[in-house]
Amino acid sequence: MTELTNSEKSLYLRVYSHYREMIDSGLLKTGARLPSVRQCAKQLQISRTTVESAYMQLAADGYVISKPQSGYYVTERPARREGEGRQETAGRKREEIVYDFSAKSVDRDSFDFNIWRRYIKSALRQDERLLSYGEPQGEWELRQALADYVAAARNVICRPEQIVIGAGTQCLLQVLCPMLSCEKVVSFPTHSMVQGITIFRDFGYEIHYKDKDAAVIYVSPSRMNRMGDVMPVSRRLELLHHAASMGSLIIEDDYESEFQDPGQPIPSLFGLSGGRGVVYLGTCSRLLLPSIRLSYMVLPLELLSVYEEHGKFYNQTASKAEQIALCQFIRDGHMEARIRKIRRLYRAKTRELFLALEREWNRKEEKGETKRIEAHNLCITIRIEQQKSKEELTKEALALGIRFDAITEDKSGNRYLVLSSLSISPEIIPEAAKAVSRLLNM
Amino acid sequence: MTELTNSEKSLYLRVYSHYREMIDSGLLKTGARLPSVRQCAKQLQISRTTVESAYMQLAADGYVISKPQSGYYVTERPARREGEGRQETAGRKREEIVYDFSAKSVDRDSFDFNIWRRYIKSALRQDERLLSYGEPQGEWELRQALADYVAAARNVICRPEQIVIGAGTQCLLQVLCPMLSCEKVVSFPTHSMVQGITIFRDFGYEIHYKDKDAAVIYVSPSRMNRMGDVMPVSRRLELLHHAASMGSLIIEDDYESEFQDPGQPIPSLFGLSGGRGVVYLGTCSRLLLPSIRLSYMVLPLELLSVYEEHGKFYNQTASKAEQIALCQFIRDGHMEARIRKIRRLYRAKTRELFLALEREWNRKEEKGETKRIEAHNLCITIRIEQQKSKEELTKEALALGIRFDAITEDKSGNRYLVLSSLSISPEIIPEAAKAVSRLLNM
Repeated sequence: MTELTNSEKSLYLRVYSHYREMIDSGLLKTGARLPSVRQCAKQLQISRTTVESAYMQLAADGYVISKPQSGYYVTERPARREGEGRQETAGRKREEIVYDFSAKSVDRDSFDFNIWRRYIKSALRQDERLLSYGEPQGEWELRQALADYVAAARNVICRPEQIVIGAGTQCLLQVLCPMLSCEKVVSFPTHSMVQGITIFRDFGYEIHYKDKDAAVIYVSPSRMNRMGDVMPVSRRLELLHHAASMGSLIIEDDYESEFQDPGQPIPSLFGLSGGRGVVYLGTCSRLLLPSIRLSYMVLPLELLSVYEEHGKFYNQTASKAEQIALCQFIRDGHMEARIRKIRRLYRAKTRELFLALEREWNRKEEKGETKRIEAHNLCITIRIEQQKSKEELTKEALALGIRFDAITEDKSGNRYLVLSSLSISPEIIPEAAKAVSRLLNM
Repeated sequence: MTELTNSEKSLYLRVYSHYREMIDSGLLKTGARLPSVRQCAKQLQISRTTVESAYMQLAADGYVISKPQSGYYVTERPARREGEGRQETAGRKREEIVYDFSAKSVDRDSFDFNIWRRYIKSALRQDERLLSYGEPQGEWELRQALADYVAAARNVICRPEQIVIGAGTQCLLQVLCPMLSCEKVVSFPTHSMVQGITIFRDFGYEIHYKDKDAAVIYVSPSRMNRMGDVMPVSRRLELLHHAASMGSLIIEDDYESEFQDPGQPIPSLFGLSGGRGVVYLGTCSRLLLPSIRLSYMVLPLELLSVYEEHGKFYNQTASKAEQIALCQFIRDGHMEARIRKIRRLYRAKTRELFLALEREWNRKEEKGETKRIEAHNLCITIRIEQQKSKEELTKEALALGIRFDAITEDKSGNRYLVLSSLSISPEIIPEAAKAVSRLLNM
């Protein structure tokens, strides 16, 4: 329940490092038993909790194994690290990514683990609630908190009864698809929305692209493309109007809307439609931690009775403890605080990356050349002048420790490297820019 | 990281109760601010951590709300409890269940929350790992630990590459179904397997019952029916042989196999088949906490290459923190210890319930009557002599605070009430038996 204080923390780290070194150096051999928690605590004159924390960390890292009622023993393969010794099915070893320009994770400093840990701990104290299966639709309190949140943040006005919680967008689509009785044709904006396309294909849908007459229209208006362009209100209204006249259902995947500039708050399609004809999808994985699987879907009123019939046959997929924690996290205002923080950070990092890249190219480019680097809403693009394929570039990037977000092409056939600053730590931006310049000038 | 000691715990509860009473009684009104953590700690001469724990619990229970940088304030609706004030879509109020004979939750005393909390806390310290999305197939280490576990416990010999992790059995079937290219006919043993039936129906399968010639045969050989009867080895071999000759795929849903008597360890179909023609499904929700969404699927070798192509399009659904925690939990031997414990407990409770029910009926039954109460592998059945419908009985049971597991019928048309002792606390078994006797003698 209580966190270790700073001085305890450093003690815990010292105990941890001490044994880790003993094991790494071979002084403690496979099968050797660590001194008991009590002995160690007495010897070093520190608390048993501190020693136990250190031992558990050693166990979590694979250095030792705990045998109940016996003690901690050095494992066969000391210094085992995540993924080490792993036979990947494809047979290749993973390259280490130093400069991560994908939008697939968030940088360490941006997330306050202590706050989240506090909420999870508090949730884990609710023994009674955790002993039973959750509600198929998701915890009522969380749905209530989310209803308040999406109303304020995205003008999605709904009742908790309209909200369905699930472990990711795909889980929600797997509940939604069997509920629809329309013609099995869905339109996606791009080929890159593999997640959604997979599920609709599984359910026998014909996949079209940019087909405004399809029975189901899947869009992400807050992030229309890799560059993070936002769909303007006029086009939103047009889309709603056309869909209503055709009787189509719109699925609004609003991911990363929270990262957009609050200076231009564009209402959601769900909000503009008055809650009819639009299914709204939101996710917390992006906002909090990608490893937290928690998304939600807001059903339009006309689908409610179908869901009441149908929804009870699907077990809830999201962790109940994480649902309880998230509910309190939102109620206490941390969600909004986090959005403000991440928005500020993301923009600052994108700007810094842009300037760092410009410095690199100013050094290298001949005068009079056209601009290669451009800053967009949520990313930076750099024009690629080599004839290399995407595969070649990905491979060369990996060799330099770089993972980029995507390669995109404009109408004139120019190709661009897309870099997101979401994952990268601010302090390595200058060297990251150097690495990118090396990659593109090879 | 450290737990509160017992004396701290009682202090924390006292602070919690104090403020709760102040709010309940109306002494502290809506909007009132609690004294700051520092003030309160100073005043009561206790640690700030203790006060903070109490405040956070008040917030978790909805009595107060924390405003960042400001303090804790009494909420508008004091004494809000889970589900209170809730407008259920069906419009009905929930009855309180005092005697839970369903197999839908586990009794409080059987689960050691402290151990599980410790592992979750340790997992939440792995900041770096939690910052990224997990592997679509599930964390490698957990798959490795599960491979060792199912080999030892269920003679399912497999490599971690064959294991797919997901947030429940339904999620796994949603990945499996699109991989199959057979005729779309599936056979289930009973109508009661709603979970699995729902998913196969969603994927356009024709649902048959007890059809041994179907292309896909879904079975739960460790729990063939409500009574928990186990499929004998001879029938298992027959089933495998017939399926092989027809080219059918068997899906072995091995739920609750862990609760069966270890005296009669019957090998899994997967093990008997040598890892071909059988998909094995296991779940940890039953064993640990129903609120933990963690199941796994072991693919037969012939489906591996299809999965490699296909599996990467599905995001992992299970919580990464819970995966990391479970992995270490298994490695440290807690899983096996837990199975031994739950088996012992479950059997002891079933026996006690049986004796308590017998005592009730001996008092009431006329001599010479045939036996009404029978103890089975995992439950107890009582013959129903009234002509009431299942709905009537369910309603009357609820009015007495009883939830039963099911009503089942034998070939001669006799009906039986099925009672599981999984959820019920040992100390209320005598009164629970009285309540059941009241229900059936009304």
